[in-house]
Formats: sequence, structure tokens, C-alpha cells
Amino acid sequence: MSEAPSLLNAVCPVPLREHERIVLGHGAGGKLTAALLEEVFLPAFRNPVLERMDDQAVLPMPGGGRLAVTTDSFVITPIFFPGGDIGSLAVHGTVNDLAMGGARPLGLAAAFILEEGMERAALARVVGSMAAAARAAGVEIVTGDTKVVNHGKGDQVFITTTGVGWVPEGVRLSADQARPGDQVLLSGTAGDHGMAILSQREGLEFEAAIVSDSAPLHGLVEALLAAVPQGAVRCLRDPTRGGVATTMHEIAGRSRVGMRLEQAAIPVRPEVGAACELLGIDPLYVANEGKLVAIVAPAAAEAAIAALRAHPLGAGAVRIGEVVERPAGMVLLATAVGGTRVLDTQFHEQLPRIC
Amino acid sequence: MSEAPSLLNAVCPVPLREHERIVLGHGAGGKLTAALLEEVFLPAFRNPVLERMDDQAVLPMPGGGRLAVTTDSFVITPIFFPGGDIGSLAVHGTVNDLAMGGARPLGLAAAFILEEGMERAALARVVGSMAAAARAAGVEIVTGDTKVVNHGKGDQVFITTTGVGWVPEGVRLSADQARPGDQVLLSGTAGDHGMAILSQREGLEFEAAIVSDSAPLHGLVEALLAAVPQGAVRCLRDPTRGGVATTMHEIAGRSRVGMRLEQAAIPVRPEVGAACELLGIDPLYVANEGKLVAIVAPAAAEAAIAALRAHPLGAGAVRIGEVVERPAGMVLLATAVGGTRVLDTQFHEQLPRIC
Repeated sequence: MSEAPSLLNAVCPVPLREHERIVLGHGAGGKLTAALLEEVFLPAFRNPVLERMDDQAVLPMPGGGRLAVTTDSFVITPIFFPGGDIGSLAVHGTVNDLAMGGARPLGLAAAFILEEGMERAALARVVGSMAAAARAAGVEIVTGDTKVVNHGKGDQVFITTTGVGWVPEGVRLSADQARPGDQVLLSGTAGDHGMAILSQREGLEFEAAIVSDSAPLHGLVEALLAAVPQGAVRCLRDPTRGGVATTMHEIAGRSRVGMRLEQAAIPVRPEVGAACELLGIDPLYVANEGKLVAIVAPAAAEAAIAALRAHPLGAGAVRIGEVVERPAGMVLLATAVGGTRVLDTQFHEQLPRIC
Repeated sequence: MSEAPSLLNAVCPVPLREHERIVLGHGAGGKLTAALLEEVFLPAFRNPVLERMDDQAVLPMPGGGRLAVTTDSFVITPIFFPGGDIGSLAVHGTVNDLAMGGARPLGLAAAFILEEGMERAALARVVGSMAAAARAAGVEIVTGDTKVVNHGKGDQVFITTTGVGWVPEGVRLSADQARPGDQVLLSGTAGDHGMAILSQREGLEFEAAIVSDSAPLHGLVEALLAAVPQGAVRCLRDPTRGGVATTMHEIAGRSRVGMRLEQAAIPVRPEVGAACELLGIDPLYVANEGKLVAIVAPAAAEAAIAALRAHPLGAGAVRIGEVVERPAGMVLLATAVGGTRVLDTQFHEQLPRIC
């Protein structure tokens, strides 16, 4: 038994050593991902910055100030989807991880792993879309790398995007800062990105096509932080892999608080809801790529919602619940029919390779 | 015709649009890689930092000072090899790219793309080796990401490592600063890493096993920079993909100078030379992962060599040639038998997936 506190105990009480081989669920953002982190990565790499387990590391700079660093590999399939492609997603995902730390993006690094045989025109389309997304987000791709693997040892293109950003003085957002009484806000509808990918993969056709919400959120975050007193926003997270439910679970575990959400308050597009019902999937576990969850002090909640709604990417912002003292580490959902459900993290892969 | 100067013309005079699909050579660091950069990546991403085409981007910080950022994907096969594995290599490669900019490493980000079915024990070994390499290099892995792709859509593990580093005041190393008369130094033997990988893959057995030179070079660089007047070191590069020849070609192109190397002066281990001869490969094009090329002012060359030799990783440092005015953009090799050979960059893949 190590004396160091096990940060993921709240998220993953069960040892999962029985998996001798990597399974898709190890990358799904749920219990298996947490177990892999806890059992393989954290014991090896253990250090105070990594152990904060936020979406970005924050490093003090020798010249003063703080630098945020975040990295993500994108392995989504198919690489083109309604509302975007792997190139725009790779920019948005990384810009958003910086934004969730309140950081202003300074530059992106992009590393490409190409599969031998990939169509050059498809690569050019991905790269063009990546460049357009970076321009729209006001950030430049300042360095990069390209590797090629043999046909059958990759899948067209994987992109790893790393972002560096500047954290303004006084901004301190972290998943361990939620306090009982804080309000939980969501900037729009849940599950759009994941269901756009899945319905394209499954060949589902609905009256209204499901479009990914992939978008850069740093402008929305700036507007939010400017509208409330410093410190009133405790924590920001973009609910990607594992969706809103998993994100809430992570914050509850890190802050050692409970979460009480109201199902009726969580907006879901009708076409997303219909697709989820058809496939037996809970939209609260489905990834978004252009939404944020904000934990804010009670007195600032109204101003925060107003600020989010005033921005095009937060027009659908709502209050979806509240931070409570107990049960610590748990997320409870007051269902639309009057019951209460525990939102646990997922064990197995539900939606592989949606980012 | 664009009015912006084409930075890679010197490296790649031939348009290579005929390749409709990605081939292994697009990742080999030679002519095809240059063409892909010039035709696909640079037109899309064009910006002054990226266009410096150094191994690291240097960004001014809002709080003062300069940040170096570098990223590399590692796709080497096999993942375990004599002298290291993909984990230690992923740390050394990135620490070295920072070091070549004179930067002190502040932190590393590591993104893993795992193939479904990978043995968990193999992953743990890679991660452990990565952690040990980071500790030995005095740098921490501060953030990361894990994705899993379906069996047959990856190759056990790909690692993308991004490094951020602090560039001390006054340090300015870039490939465009070589001037006629400058001396070309190499810190040790050429081709060790690439031949270690290739001989393992081909099942070659020699009396002495070929061991990769994979090592972190930031300490060697610090010792070098401390030993000579500021500005005397013009440019540092670690000759990885494409080897010493390709690195010299890049510097010649960027600085618009010629290079004159002496074959007899370039150290090659006997076992590496024997393997190269057997396989018909020129060691000057074979990757190193623990060597550097330094371009230094003539007056500082002696002190620079002494400083390199005083460090364990530079014990075999030698002068291998000189920067000349013409022919600009070309690398000439005075051969051991008294002739002169042009060292062009390579067109096709010679050694796929050696990093």
C-alpha cells in the first residue's frame, strides 16, 4: 500500500488487473481508462502537476506567469463526418482543453501518423480543414511532425495536437474546487458529437441529420470569466469521451462532493434523443466537442448563464443541477418521472473512436 | 506562383505531385517528406514560426522570455531494441529537439495510441522505461492522453511526445545561421540507432551487437554552450531520420551555404560499417538518436570540441568538415580515396519506422 493518496479511488474502486491485454474500453474515458491510468501510467509518471488530473497541465514559467499544456491524440473514424472532420476536431479538442483551464492559446503543435496508401487528396482536405479551424480559433500551428506506417498498421490518419496557452493572472480553474451549493451549468445540448459519428457509422437516417457540435470554446470561456467575479467559476470541463455523466463524476471525485442533476433540465436535441433510444444509449454518456460544464458559485450563477447565452456557442446554456455535500464522489440524477438514479462511470466501451 | 519565398526549394527542386497516395517515403525525412511539407502542410499552415523549419518552435511569452515547443510521433518497430525501446526513445527524441534549440526542458506531454490486444505487460514496460528516461533527463511528464484503436488499425503502441522548454536569454540557434568558414562538428559515431533497429529486424548477427545510441543530449548542449562565447555556436541539430547527410543538407539549404565534409573524419563503428556494407546502405544516411551536429565559428571550434569530449555523451566528438560559400545548398563529401561526392537527400524510403 502506498502512502500517497490514490487520486482515482473515487472513480475506480475496483482493481482491474484481470485485463492482460488492452481492450477498446481502455480508451473510452470510463472505468477502464481510469484503471489503466491508476495502475500503469500514474505509478510510473507520478508528479504533482500530472496528479491534478485536469485537462491541461499548468507550469510556472521561469520568466513569470503560468503556461498551460495539453495534448490529445485523435483517432476518430470515419475521418469525415457531419459538422467536421478529424482535422477541425483536432484543433477544437485541444483549444478547448486549454480554454477549460482559462488559458489563452499561444500555439499548437500537430503530429501526423499517416497510413501508407492514404489518399493524398484526403490528407490535403484534413490539413486544410485543420488550418481553417486554427485560423477561426485565432491560433497558429507552430511546429509539427509526420510519420508514415505500413498499410494495415494505422487507419488513414491519426493526429496528435498539443496546445500551449497562457493562464492570465488570478485565473485558477480546477476540478478539485467544487463546493456544496455551487451550481452546475451546461452550455447547450448533450450528446451531439458522439451521435453524429455513431449514426454515420451505423448508416442511420433521421429526418434531421445529426451534426457534430465540434467548435472552439475559448471565446465562450473568456466571455464567461469576464462576466463574474474572480473565483466564482470554480471549474470548467468540456464533456467529451464519457459525456456529461463521466465529467460530473470526475469533478465529484476530485472535489470530494456529490452532484445532484435534474434530467428534465438537460437539453438533448430530438434527433439525438431518438438515435440514442434506437441504439439503447444514454445521451448523458455521449461525447460533445463544443459544450462546457461550468461549476459556479451560487451568487454568480445567474450572471454566468446570461454571459453564456449571450455568446453564439452558449445560446442554449442552462442550469442542470447543484453540488451537494453527500454522497461524496457520486452523481445522482433526479429523473423526469420523479425517481433518482445513480450515474456511475461506464465500465465498457460504448462508443469507440469518437475522437 | 506565390510571392512568398519557397523555403524548401533548395531541398526539393522537383514537384512531386505524382504521388496520389501516401507512401512510406513520405515519412522518411528525405525528398518525399520535404515535398509533402512543401505541397500540403506549409501552404495550409504557413506562419513565420513554422517556416523557420527548426526542430522546435520558439514563441515569445507574454510574461517575458521565450518558450520552445517541439513534437514528435514515435512509430518505431520493433518497440523493444538493443539500447532502448519506444518509451525511452520518445523521451530522448523530444528532449533532444528542445536541446537543439538551446532550451532547458520544462515538461513533456505524452499521448499514447494503443492497439487493441496489446499486452498490458509490454505497455507497462514501455511506460516504465519512459518514466526512467524522463527522470534521468530531469524532466517530468506533466500531462497525457490515451486512445485505443481496433486490432489491425495500429501497431501495439505509438507515442507522441511534445516538449516545452525555456530558452535562456541570448541563446539563438537556428539552421539559417551557418556562415562560410564555420566548422562542422559531430559528437560521435554515425548511424548507430538506425543500424541497431535494422539489424534486429533483419535478424543480422555480428560479433559485436549493434546498440542504439539513444540518449538525452541537453546536458551535452549545456556544456558546449557554456564553453564558447555567445553566438559562436550557430546551429545544433540531432541527425535522426535521414542521418548526418540529410541534416547537413537542411542546414546548407536554410543558410544558403555549401558544406564540405571529409569522409575519413566521420567516425563509424566497425560493426555499423559492416552491417551497412552488407545491406548496401550509406551510414551517413542512417539515423542517430544520441548525437549532435554543431556548426561553430572557426575561432571557437577547438574549445567546442574539447567541451564535447569532456562530456560522456560527446567523448567521440570530431571535426568532420567546414561550411563553404559555394555551391550553395549542396553538401560535398571528400571521399577516403581522394574523390568528391555530392551528398543529396534521399528520395525513397531506406529505413522505414526507425523512430
